[in-house]
Amino acid sequence: MPRETGTKRTILDAALALAAERGITGTTMDDVAERAGVAKGTLYYNFASKDKIFEGLLLEGMSGLTDALRSARVGRRGWEAIEALVGTLLERIAANTALAKVIAGELFRTDRSWQESSFAFRHQALAEFAVAIAEALPDESDTQTTNLMASGVFGATLLVGLEWLVFDPTRAQSDVVAAVLATFSGTLNR
Amino acid sequence: MPRETGTKRTILDAALALAAERGITGTTMDDVAERAGVAKGTLYYNFASKDKIFEGLLLEGMSGLTDALRSARVGRRGWEAIEALVGTLLERIAANTALAKVIAGELFRTDRSWQESSFAFRHQALAEFAVAIAEALPDESDTQTTNLMASGVFGATLLVGLEWLVFDPTRAQSDVVAAVLATFSGTLNR
Repeated sequence: MPRETGTKRTILDAALALAAERGITGTTMDDVAERAGVAKGTLYYNFASKDKIFEGLLLEGMSGLTDALRSARVGRRGWEAIEALVGTLLERIAANTALAKVIAGELFRTDRSWQESSFAFRHQALAEFAVAIAEALPDESDTQTTNLMASGVFGATLLVGLEWLVFDPTRAQSDVVAAVLATFSGTLNR
Repeated sequence: MPRETGTKRTILDAALALAAERGITGTTMDDVAERAGVAKGTLYYNFASKDKIFEGLLLEGMSGLTDALRSARVGRRGWEAIEALVGTLLERIAANTALAKVIAGELFRTDRSWQESSFAFRHQALAEFAVAIAEALPDESDTQTTNLMASGVFGATLLVGLEWLVFDPTRAQSDVVAAVLATFSGTLNR
């Protein structure tokens, strides 16, 4: 999915900033036009509806994340791949915290018009974690357990990343990566 | 915090069901009155505003969770306490999935009128995990790392629990507990 530029980009950035503050439902097309500094006519010329704006934003974000996770796994297996995936996810959250906040708020919404495509991307992102986890586990591990563990590693990384950036952004990224990895490394069970 | 009963309970349950479907912002007082089957006068007699309803619901839920987590740790230390906390959190998510969905959607909202009290409860719930984690780690571990790891264990458990109950509710609870614990037990790093 190519990244939008120009007026479309200005509108998307304004909508994202608003949604990170007050949620998607709490953001109106009037708010977006005002924040973007464009006329309502311009807004509707570029996006037919609020749903189209957020569908575009979320799918662009999740597609970018999936690509980054796939690249992170290249040439790595098992625990080494998990380390790279956790580091990459934290980097993406730091690079676009507003988007990460909005995606976190959407994870268990089942009433959105973009449900189906968002679910497909979610599945792809989790699959990158699941592959690395399956490589790390003993051979007899079943797929459903691997998939639940993928949600666990993804969920822990997302929540720690947002906790860091929303509530304690002065911490060094390397400390946060180390803390997340320590959660999974077995240090809790010695 | 005593659990509300009677008309107040009917209203709270209706509001929670609606918020789990469409979010707090997407739920209006008119929706709540209709779903609860009460007149608008009755609704406003019991709760001055929508914010008061959701403040009540979230604080009741988080206070109940914190009490349950505290009880789960009694007589246990370190990894054994972590196992009990993970099991308890998953039980609570299973017992009230609608509330867990709404709380998950609220974790990084910073624009709510109940921000301060919700933040205090969040801190207490995470502290139960942090104590158990500190017991499990080597003595030289610093508090900030322990706190980040507490968010990680809490976040992984919450996301796996919701993934299970929203998308794959036929799985046995014991399988889900085992998968979450496997994420932290060190099996990924062997």
